Amino acid sequence: MMDENGILFVLSGPSGVGKGTVRKKLFERADDLAYSISMTTRERRAGEQDGVDYFYKTHEQFEKLIADNELLEHARFVNNYYGTPRKYVEDTLAAGKDIFLEIEVQGAMQVKENFPKGVFIFLFPPSLEELKDRIMSRATESPDAVLKRLKEARSEIEMMDAYDYVVVNDDVERAVTKIQSIIQSEHCRRERIAKQYKKLLEDG
Amino acid sequence: MMDENGILFVLSGPSGVGKGTVRKKLFERADDLAYSISMTTRERRAGEQDGVDYFYKTHEQFEKLIADNELLEHARFVNNYYGTPRKYVEDTLAAGKDIFLEIEVQGAMQVKENFPKGVFIFLFPPSLEELKDRIMSRATESPDAVLKRLKEARSEIEMMDAYDYVVVNDDVERAVTKIQSIIQSEHCRRERIAKQYKKLLEDG
Repeated sequence: MMDENGILFVLSGPSGVGKGTVRKKLFERADDLAYSISMTTRERRAGEQDGVDYFYKTHEQFEKLIADNELLEHARFVNNYYGTPRKYVEDTLAAGKDIFLEIEVQGAMQVKENFPKGVFIFLFPPSLEELKDRIMSRATESPDAVLKRLKEARSEIEMMDAYDYVVVNDDVERAVTKIQSIIQSEHCRRERIAKQYKKLLEDG
Repeated sequence: MMDENGILFVLSGPSGVGKGTVRKKLFERADDLAYSISMTTRERRAGEQDGVDYFYKTHEQFEKLIADNELLEHARFVNNYYGTPRKYVEDTLAAGKDIFLEIEVQGAMQVKENFPKGVFIFLFPPSLEELKDRIMSRATESPDAVLKRLKEARSEIEMMDAYDYVVVNDDVERAVTKIQSIIQSEHCRRERIAKQYKKLLEDG
């Protein structure tokens, strides 16, 4: 009914909690949500498209983007950079479309610093036991490495305080339904829309 | 999954906006929501039950409840008092059940003062034109009285700033769906549940 900006939603949580599965299911259900396309310096693989799978950049270009504060977050894995371009996010939001980011806890904290207006959702494991099982079933690593990852997960959970919402991932369908409720209700938050409604009143 | 308190939701908005219709439809859909039973000094009518339709009180009892701050809000119409009992609301919330209040703007502001933890939802007319039509179609009053009510509605809309959410009542089904989203997402708000989740972590 009125020209409203989109909202940036950030889904994060400890490793092993199932962020990717929840994000995929959400995108199956919600067709009015834009997925944030990442930037990377890694080489384009066969079948991948620039601007669809990733925005591909050289190391030099990427480091200039970092220096110019053009990334909402970035990280380096195995000699390659990955990051979230600020301009793509801002343009999509300005076009009235919501953006959804699924991202590690460290990256989410960078986004929060650069874009505090975002809505931050923390995916919580149904129990520590289950998180342990999930991490162990994935890990091809030594018991020591598993313990280290579990300790990391614990300290990631401590970061929950920086988030707006906590959704427990006891059931993927249920978690996705809750996230969809959060998306819809955030569009009703008074501080986002009161100005436009008051304008309506003046025009009326 | 854990012993969480219920949440008090307050639906309000200008007269003529359709609060009652929205509330009825919501209760048809949501069976896990308690309706706040009002207290009144008016006489019990045939078929009405104490503790179901109203809690019936004498004038003396009611005025003592006001003096003891036992009402979240109250008002007087045609020599009778009507109000929302604090104890009933608090007991229901402590039992883990949400309470839903549908109420005039003045009363909602009293509730907010007495119970700031509540979630306040403002029902907004689709347009001022439509609000005018609705008020006029109801009124058996003079044109002057209609104008006065419309002026009141305008100043009630100005009170929107005290609310957490704004839901436009352009379509009853859509408005109810939005309110259900707000109810679900408020149960995911980090500040409500982080303490319980952290406890889980210590136990785990």
